[in-house]
Amino acid sequence: MGSEIHEACGLFGVWNLPDAVELTFRGLFTLQHRGQEGAGIVSSNRERLRSHRGLGLVSEVFKSADLELLKNPISIGHVRYSTAGSPTLQNAQPILVDYWRGQVAVAHNGTLVNAQVLRREFEAAGSIFQTTSDTETIVHLIARPGFSENRAAILDSVQRIKGAFCLLILTPRELVAVRDPHGFRPLCLGTLEGSYVVASETCALDLLGAKFVREIKPGEALFIDDWGLDSRRFGEPQKQRAQCIFEKIYFARPDSRLNGESVHLFRQRLGRQLAREYPVEADVVFPVPDSGNSAAQGYALESGIPLDQGFIRNHYVGRTFIDPDAKDRGRKVNMKLNTVEEVIRGKRIVVVDDSVVRGVTTVEKIRQLREVGPKEIHLRVSCPPIRNPCFYGIDFPTKEELIANGREVHEIAKMLDVDSMGYLSVEGMLSCVPDEPMDYCHACFSGNYPVQIDPKQTKEMLEHPADLKCD
Amino acid sequence: MGSEIHEACGLFGVWNLPDAVELTFRGLFTLQHRGQEGAGIVSSNRERLRSHRGLGLVSEVFKSADLELLKNPISIGHVRYSTAGSPTLQNAQPILVDYWRGQVAVAHNGTLVNAQVLRREFEAAGSIFQTTSDTETIVHLIARPGFSENRAAILDSVQRIKGAFCLLILTPRELVAVRDPHGFRPLCLGTLEGSYVVASETCALDLLGAKFVREIKPGEALFIDDWGLDSRRFGEPQKQRAQCIFEKIYFARPDSRLNGESVHLFRQRLGRQLAREYPVEADVVFPVPDSGNSAAQGYALESGIPLDQGFIRNHYVGRTFIDPDAKDRGRKVNMKLNTVEEVIRGKRIVVVDDSVVRGVTTVEKIRQLREVGPKEIHLRVSCPPIRNPCFYGIDFPTKEELIANGREVHEIAKMLDVDSMGYLSVEGMLSCVPDEPMDYCHACFSGNYPVQIDPKQTKEMLEHPADLKCD
Amino acid sequence: MGSEIHEACGLFGVWNLPDAVELTFRGLFTLQHRGQEGAGIVSSNRERLRSHRGLGLVSEVFKSADLELLKNPISIGHVRYSTAGSPTLQNAQPILVDYWRGQVAVAHNGTLVNAQVLRREFEAAGSIFQTTSDTETIVHLIARPGFSENRAAILDSVQRIKGAFCLLILTPRELVAVRDPHGFRPLCLGTLEGSYVVASETCALDLLGAKFVREIKPGEALFIDDWGLDSRRFGEPQKQRAQCIFEKIYFARPDSRLNGESVHLFRQRLGRQLAREYPVEADVVFPVPDSGNSAAQGYALESGIPLDQGFIRNHYVGRTFIDPDAKDRGRKVNMKLNTVEEVIRGKRIVVVDDSVVRGVTTVEKIRQLREVGPKEIHLRVSCPPIRNPCFYGIDFPTKEELIANGREVHEIAKMLDVDSMGYLSVEGMLSCVPDEPMDYCHACFSGNYPVQIDPKQTKEMLEHPADLKCD
Amino acid sequence: MGSEIHEACGLFGVWNLPDAVELTFRGLFTLQHRGQEGAGIVSSNRERLRSHRGLGLVSEVFKSADLELLKNPISIGHVRYSTAGSPTLQNAQPILVDYWRGQVAVAHNGTLVNAQVLRREFEAAGSIFQTTSDTETIVHLIARPGFSENRAAILDSVQRIKGAFCLLILTPRELVAVRDPHGFRPLCLGTLEGSYVVASETCALDLLGAKFVREIKPGEALFIDDWGLDSRRFGEPQKQRAQCIFEKIYFARPDSRLNGESVHLFRQRLGRQLAREYPVEADVVFPVPDSGNSAAQGYALESGIPLDQGFIRNHYVGRTFIDPDAKDRGRKVNMKLNTVEEVIRGKRIVVVDDSVVRGVTTVEKIRQLREVGPKEIHLRVSCPPIRNPCFYGIDFPTKEELIANGREVHEIAKMLDVDSMGYLSVEGMLSCVPDEPMDYCHACFSGNYPVQIDPKQTKEMLEHPADLKCD
Repeated sequence: MGSEIHEACGLFGVWNLPDAVELTFRGLFTLQHRGQEGAGIVSSNRERLRSHRGLGLVSEVFKSADLELLKNPISIGHVRYSTAGSPTLQNAQPILVDYWRGQVAVAHNGTLVNAQVLRREFEAAGSIFQTTSDTETIVHLIARPGFSENRAAILDSVQRIKGAFCLLILTPRELVAVRDPHGFRPLCLGTLEGSYVVASETCALDLLGAKFVREIKPGEALFIDDWGLDSRRFGEPQKQRAQCIFEKIYFARPDSRLNGESVHLFRQRLGRQLAREYPVEADVVFPVPDSGNSAAQGYALESGIPLDQGFIRNHYVGRTFIDPDAKDRGRKVNMKLNTVEEVIRGKRIVVVDDSVVRGVTTVEKIRQLREVGPKEIHLRVSCPPIRNPCFYGIDFPTKEELIANGREVHEIAKMLDVDSMGYLSVEGMLSCVPDEPMDYCHACFSGNYPVQIDPKQTKEMLEHPADLKCD
Repeated sequence: MGSEIHEACGLFGVWNLPDAVELTFRGLFTLQHRGQEGAGIVSSNRERLRSHRGLGLVSEVFKSADLELLKNPISIGHVRYSTAGSPTLQNAQPILVDYWRGQVAVAHNGTLVNAQVLRREFEAAGSIFQTTSDTETIVHLIARPGFSENRAAILDSVQRIKGAFCLLILTPRELVAVRDPHGFRPLCLGTLEGSYVVASETCALDLLGAKFVREIKPGEALFIDDWGLDSRRFGEPQKQRAQCIFEKIYFARPDSRLNGESVHLFRQRLGRQLAREYPVEADVVFPVPDSGNSAAQGYALESGIPLDQGFIRNHYVGRTFIDPDAKDRGRKVNMKLNTVEEVIRGKRIVVVDDSVVRGVTTVEKIRQLREVGPKEIHLRVSCPPIRNPCFYGIDFPTKEELIANGREVHEIAKMLDVDSMGYLSVEGMLSCVPDEPMDYCHACFSGNYPVQIDPKQTKEMLEHPADLKCD
Repeated sequence: MGSEIHEACGLFGVWNLPDAVELTFRGLFTLQHRGQEGAGIVSSNRERLRSHRGLGLVSEVFKSADLELLKNPISIGHVRYSTAGSPTLQNAQPILVDYWRGQVAVAHNGTLVNAQVLRREFEAAGSIFQTTSDTETIVHLIARPGFSENRAAILDSVQRIKGAFCLLILTPRELVAVRDPHGFRPLCLGTLEGSYVVASETCALDLLGAKFVREIKPGEALFIDDWGLDSRRFGEPQKQRAQCIFEKIYFARPDSRLNGESVHLFRQRLGRQLAREYPVEADVVFPVPDSGNSAAQGYALESGIPLDQGFIRNHYVGRTFIDPDAKDRGRKVNMKLNTVEEVIRGKRIVVVDDSVVRGVTTVEKIRQLREVGPKEIHLRVSCPPIRNPCFYGIDFPTKEELIANGREVHEIAKMLDVDSMGYLSVEGMLSCVPDEPMDYCHACFSGNYPVQIDPKQTKEMLEHPADLKCD
Repeated sequence: MGSEIHEACGLFGVWNLPDAVELTFRGLFTLQHRGQEGAGIVSSNRERLRSHRGLGLVSEVFKSADLELLKNPISIGHVRYSTAGSPTLQNAQPILVDYWRGQVAVAHNGTLVNAQVLRREFEAAGSIFQTTSDTETIVHLIARPGFSENRAAILDSVQRIKGAFCLLILTPRELVAVRDPHGFRPLCLGTLEGSYVVASETCALDLLGAKFVREIKPGEALFIDDWGLDSRRFGEPQKQRAQCIFEKIYFARPDSRLNGESVHLFRQRLGRQLAREYPVEADVVFPVPDSGNSAAQGYALESGIPLDQGFIRNHYVGRTFIDPDAKDRGRKVNMKLNTVEEVIRGKRIVVVDDSVVRGVTTVEKIRQLREVGPKEIHLRVSCPPIRNPCFYGIDFPTKEELIANGREVHEIAKMLDVDSMGYLSVEGMLSCVPDEPMDYCHACFSGNYPVQIDPKQTKEMLEHPADLKCD
C-alpha cells in the first residue's frame, strides 16, 4: 500500500518550444508519484547540452534560477527513486557525457536484465563507471566507436540491451524516445503548440494542455529533430507484449490512460470483479485512501453495499514529517489516516485496497479500525497475492518480506486480524484488461517471466537487489 | 473552495506529560489545515516559560533541535493564518510576556469585536503594542495590576473581551482553556496517559491516541494545574449558543466531531438535503476533491445517481509549486486537478462542492470540465450563498469579491457556465444540524449577527479588514 | 583577546536617501565587529514603518528580497550581541511598536543603570514586557501619555534614563540620535549626497563614502526631519565626560576615529608607552593578530626591536567552524593561528596583545609558541589588568573569570608561562589619550565608576549579569 | 591581488587514524585558500570507498552528519577552484569510479599538458567523459586492462601524463601520493600519532599537530598501505626541478614552508630586494593587507622607512557580501579596505603588494589612497610583471586582461596613477630563493616554459582556457 513499493522513474521530454525547460519541470511535477528521491533536466540549445540534477522532490531540486540557467528550446527530464540506503547524487539522471561524437544525455525508466553482463564486459575493456545505474551502461554502448552516424549507434545499442526500458536520449540536435520490444513500461507522445512532448504517462500531457497522439510502440525508437519524426523499429518482433499490469493496478495515476484506457475505470472494473469473486454481507464499503478509491467504488457499485469514507487522510502529511514519526517508539500512532467512528462502529465493513505488499502498514490500519469497534472487517484486495520478485523495474521488497510469500490467504487473514479476506484471482484480474490478457506481464503474481534473465544476473539480483536497481 | 478562505488558528495544549512538546508539535500538525502561515509553542518547566515561533508550516518551523530546547512537561501551541500581505513573525503566537506577576503566554483563535476599542484605551494610557493581533490586547488585560491572584485577573479579563474567542493561557504552573460565551469556535478536552490535552478539534485527540472527554463549554474558563481541573464560568449566560456553522461545513476536518457529531456525516446529510432541494436527471455525481467528498456522497445516496471520480487530485501539489504557477501567464493550466475523460464525456454530470466564495477557482474547474465534453454540468453547493462578512474569525474576502454579492443564483450560474446551479437553503442547512438550529451562527449566509459589534470597529473592519484580523 | 569579550551593539541610520536601506545594510556590515548575534533594520516611507530583524550576521539576516521589501528613504539599523546562552529573536532590535501617537522604533547601544527600577515601575502599573532588553523600557517611557508632541516625550524620556546609552529613534517623519550626558559610547553624524547619516563609528562613514561632520555631543538629542537638524540638550550638564576607554583600546575598528583621533594611532601610542614602561632585551616583536597589531608596531618603533610576524592568521576561520572545533577533545589544536618557526625558534620574543580578559586563549597561544622553541617569551599587554565589572555596556565575564581578579602580575605571568609580563599602567594609558584624561571612564581597570548605580540593580547585575545585558 | 587569481586545488590525505575523516576535513579547512568553490572527501574502510562532495567552502560542504557517514580510517580530500562561469558539481573531486579491479578515487592539483590528446584517444576508443577535468583522464588511464597489479597500473599511468600534477589516489587498501617529475606543485608527507598524513602545504600539518617528514619528491609515487611506505620513481629523471615560484610569491600561506623554507621569510627577502632595486625617499611603508604584509616588512627593514598600517581590512567581508557589492553601480566603494588618514595625509607613502595581475583592484585602491591626500604614492610589487599564461595549473586571466601585457612599467604607473612604480626583477626574485634558481618555473614572468606543450593543446588552451582548466 502506498509507501511500501516504489517504481524507478518517470520521463518527460519537450522538443522545440520556447519554454521547454519550464514545461519539463511541470511535466516532472505531474510524474512525481513515479519517483521522489531525485530529479534532473538536461536541455539543448542545438549546440551544447546543460544539466541540473539533485536529490529530493522536483520542487526542491529546481529553483527558478536553475530553470533560468537551463533555458533552452529542447529538454528532457527524469524523476527517480533510489533503492540504496542513502540516495546518492551520482546516480541522478539524466546522465550527461562527452564522447567522441560530442555530447549525449540518457534518462531511463526500467531495469535491464543483462546490465551486469554488459558492465563486466565494458569494465574488462578498461571502462570506468561513476554510477551504479544501468543507464551508464547504455551510455557506454552509445559511445562505442565505429558507427557512421548517431542513429546507427543508438539503434545498435538499444538492440543489445535486454529487459524493461523506456529511454529518452538527447543529443544537441536530436531527441530520441525508445521503448523496449515488450513494452513493459509506458511512454507516450503528445503535441503542444505545434511541437512534440514525450511523457511516461498521459496525465502529464493533460496537465500541460498537450494532446495525446499515441503510445511509443514496443520496439520503437522515435527520433525527433528539426526535420520531424523518424520512427525506427529495433529488436526481434515479439509475438505478444508484456505490459506491466502492476502499472495499471498501482503505479500509474488514476487520471492516466494506459493503452488507450482510463486507469481509474480499469481499477473500478477490478473492484467490480472483486465483488463478484468475494461477495460478503456488509453494511458499508470504503477504501484505504487514496490507493483503493477506484476499486472500492467498483466494489460498492457491483455489490450494492453503500460506499462511505471510513478513513480520512491528512493532506499535510508528507516527507516533512518523516523524522519525528520515525523517532516515535512508545506510542503507535498513525498521523496520516484517521477513522470516522460513525461509519465503523458496530458495522460490518468492507475495506478495499489496491494491493498488500509487506503488509506492515495494513496490519496497522486494521488495528486502527478494530479500536473503533466494527462488528466485522472484510478486507478485499484488487490484485492477486504478490509472491515473486520483479526483474523489470518494480522495486518490490525481498521475497522474504512479502506477506504472501509462503502463506495461504487464510493465514494472511489471521495475521492481519480480519474476519475475511479476498484477493482478486489472476484470471479475474486479466478479465478486466481492455485488450489481450496475453499482452501483459504478471510475473509478480504468477511467476511467469516473459523475458529470460541472465542466470548470473538473477543470482546476483536476488542476493543484492539494491545494487542492480537501475533507473 | 479550498484555497479561497482561511480561518485564523488552531490551538493545542498538553498538561504534564514528559513529551508534552513533541505531542504539541504533533497536535499542531494535525491542525495544520486551520493555519499554514505560522506556528509557535510555549512550554513550561513550572518555573519559566520557553518559546519558539516561526513562519511556515509546522514541520518547517520546528526542527528537532527546537523541540529539544523547548522540552518541558507543560506546553501550548498555535497555528495561524496571517491575512496581511506578507506574514510577519511579530504576529506569531503564542505571545509570551513578562509582567508584574511573572510570565504569561496566550494563544488565541477567533476575533474580538471590541479589540480596537480596548487597544485605544490601553494606548491612551501609555501602553505599547508590538503586534497587530487581538491577542496582545488580551495580554494587556491580564497584566493589569490590582488582582490578588492569577485566576481573578484572567476571569476579569475574559469578561471584558467580546466576540469569538478560544484561548489557551499558560503561566508557569497553570494552563487555562477559555471559550467565549457564545461558543463560536470549537475547543475540546481530552485525556492521555492520565493527564490532559486541549485541542481545537477532536481529530487532534484521535491522531495522538488521546480520549475525548468533552468540549470546553461556552463561557467556561478551565484552569488546569497540579491540583487538577477547576472550571469557572464567566460572562453573562447566553440563551443560545452561536456555534459557527461554517466550521462544520468547511473548516473542520471531516474526521473531527463537533458538538458530538461527525463532521463527515453532517456534510453527507447536507448533500442528501441538497439532492432533495435540487434534484436533477443525471448520469453521474462527483465531488470537487476533497472539499466536496462527503456532500457528493450524500447527494449520490439520496438521488440514486452513481458516484464516481471525475476529478483526480495531484497529491504532490503544495506550496512548493506556488511560484512557478503564479508566473504562468500564457497557458491557463490547473496543476492540482486532472479530469477523467470517461467519467465526463457525453455525460450529464452533477458536480458537488462545499462552498463557492469568490468563484475564481470554480470558474476554472468548470471550464476544465467543459473541455472534456460533458452533455450537461449541474453544480450543487452544500451551503447557501455567502453574502456577508464574518466578524468572528473567518477571513472571507471583502464583500465585493464574494461571487454571491449582489447576484442572483441564475446570474452566478451563467458566470460559471453551468447548466444548472443549486445552493442549499438556509433552512435546509439548519435542518441538518444534530441539535438546535438556534445554537448556530450563520451570519455569513443570513446577515443575522449574534454579537453586537462596536460600530466604530465595524466601520474600520469593513474598511480595513486585514488590520483587524485577529489571531 | 578577540573572542573573549563582546560589546553590545552598533547603530546606523540614514535620513532621506533613495537607497537608505541598502546603505543601512552596508553600514551595519561595517559595524559587524560590534555585534554578530543579530541585526535589524526599520525603515520609513514617512507614513508607516517597516521592520526586518533576525539572528546571525548582517549578511545572513538580510537577503536581497528583505532589503527590497524594506525599501524606503529613511532607515535605522542595529547589530547586537546577545549574552544569554541562546540568542533569542525577541530581543532583536530595533524594537518597533504601535502606541497612542502612532509608531516608533528604538535601537540602543549601552546599558541603563536604572532599567530594572523603571521596568518594575512599569510592570507594577500593568505594563507587559516582551523582551529582556533595556530598550523596551525606553519605548515604554516614550509611549507615556500626556506629552503634547513627540519631541517633548522623547526629551522627557531620555532625561529619565541613567547610564550609558546611544539611541536611534525613528518615527514615520523623524529620526532622532541620542547620546547620554557622559558620552560613554560613540555616535557620530555624517553627510552623504546632501543628506545625513548617523553611525556608531566613523569607519562606517568612510566605507560608504560619507563625510564626517561631528560626534553627537554628550547630552544631545539630535532631531532630523524634513526641516533639517534640531539639536536639543537634555540631562544635567556634566563637568566631565566619561568616554569608554575600552572602546579605544579594544572594540572600535582601528580605522575609526574617536573624539577626532585615529584609533590606530592611539593604540600605537599605547604600544610606545608600553615599551617605555616595560622595556626588554629581545630579538623580535610581534602581535597577536589582529588585535595587537597597532600596539606591537608602537612597541617596535619605540624599542627599536624589529617587528615581524610570529603568528599567521587563517582568514577562513569563522563561525562556521565552531562546531567541529567544539567537538575536539583529544587533540588541542588551534585552527585559527599558526606560528612561523623561523621567527620564533631560539629567539627572545616580545608578544604584544591589546588585552587579557579571562586568559584562556592567551594560555593556549603561549603554549603554542613554547612548542616552537623560543629562548624567552615576554608578554606585553597594552592596557592595565581588568579587575572590575562594567555597568555601562561592555559584557565582561563575571569577576571570578577575570584572570587578573585577585592575582598579582607575577602570578599571572606564571600561570601563562611567560618569562616576563608587562601590563600598561593606568597612568601610562591615560597619558596617551589626545584630550583630557578626566573625560574617560576606566572603571574596569580602576574601579572608579563615573555614574552611580542603583544599589538594588547592582546587586542583581552582579548576580545575574546576563539578565541585565541590554543591547 | 588577492581575489584576482586562483589556483586550482589543495590535497589532504590521512592513512589509518580513527578520525581520519575529521582530520581530512580540518586539513582541507587549512588549505581553503587553495580553492573555495568546491570540496570533497573519499574515505575507505579497507573494503569500500565512500564519497561526499559539494560546491562551496569546506565548512559549507560538510555538515557533521556527512562526516559521520564518511567515518573510516583512511581518507583523501580535495578543495578546488572552478574556472567555468558557474561551478558545477560534476567536476567536484575526488572522482570515484568502479572499474574492473574494483574502486579507485583520484584527487588532482595541477594541469596536464597532454590531457586533451589523451582524452581524444580515449574518446576515439569509445570512452565517455562525465566531467571536463583532467582528473577523469587519469582515472581512465588507471582503469585500462592488462596490468597484473594496481601499482603497475598506477605507475604506467602517471608515466603517460605530462605537465604539472600532484595526485592522491585511493583504492580500498592503498593511498598513493604522486608528484610530477618537475615538482611544479607542492606535496608533503607528515606523521601524526604513528601514522601518515599527506598535504599540499605544511601549514596543514602544523595546524593538525602533525610533524613534517619530507616533501614528496618530484617523480615519486609513494604507496602507503598496511605494510608501510613504498616509494617508486617514475618518469624520465629531470636535470632540474620546475617548482612554481608563484606558489612562493602568492598562493602558499605565509606560515607554510616550501622546499624547507618559510614562505613568510622568502617574501620578506623579496621585499628587501625590492627596496634595494627600487629605493625611494618616503615617510612610511605599508602593505596591501594581507597579501603584501611580509614583503612590506622586508621593504621597511631594508629601507629604514617606518612600517605602518595605511589600510585596515574588514574581517567580516567574505563571500556573503558579493551580491550586494556586485549590484552596486552608482557608488564606487570598497567595503573590504579602509584607510587610516593620519598615516597617509600629506605623507610620501610606499605601498607594497605581492603582485598585480589585472590591475582592476589596484586601480581602485590607489584611487582610495589618493582621496585621503598623500603627498606621493610609490607602488612596489614584490614580483616581476606577469606577461605570460601558465600552462601548469595557475588560473591567470587571459593575456589581454593582464595589465602588464604590452605595457611598459611607466605606462602601468600612469594607468594606476602612482608617482613611481617598481616591479621586482626576475633576477632579483631568483636571487631570493634558498636553493638553485634553475629549479624554479617562472614562465609567467619570463615566458620560459620548462615543459613542452602539445601544440594543438596550446592553441586550444589559448582559445578556450576555461575548458581546459583542470583542477
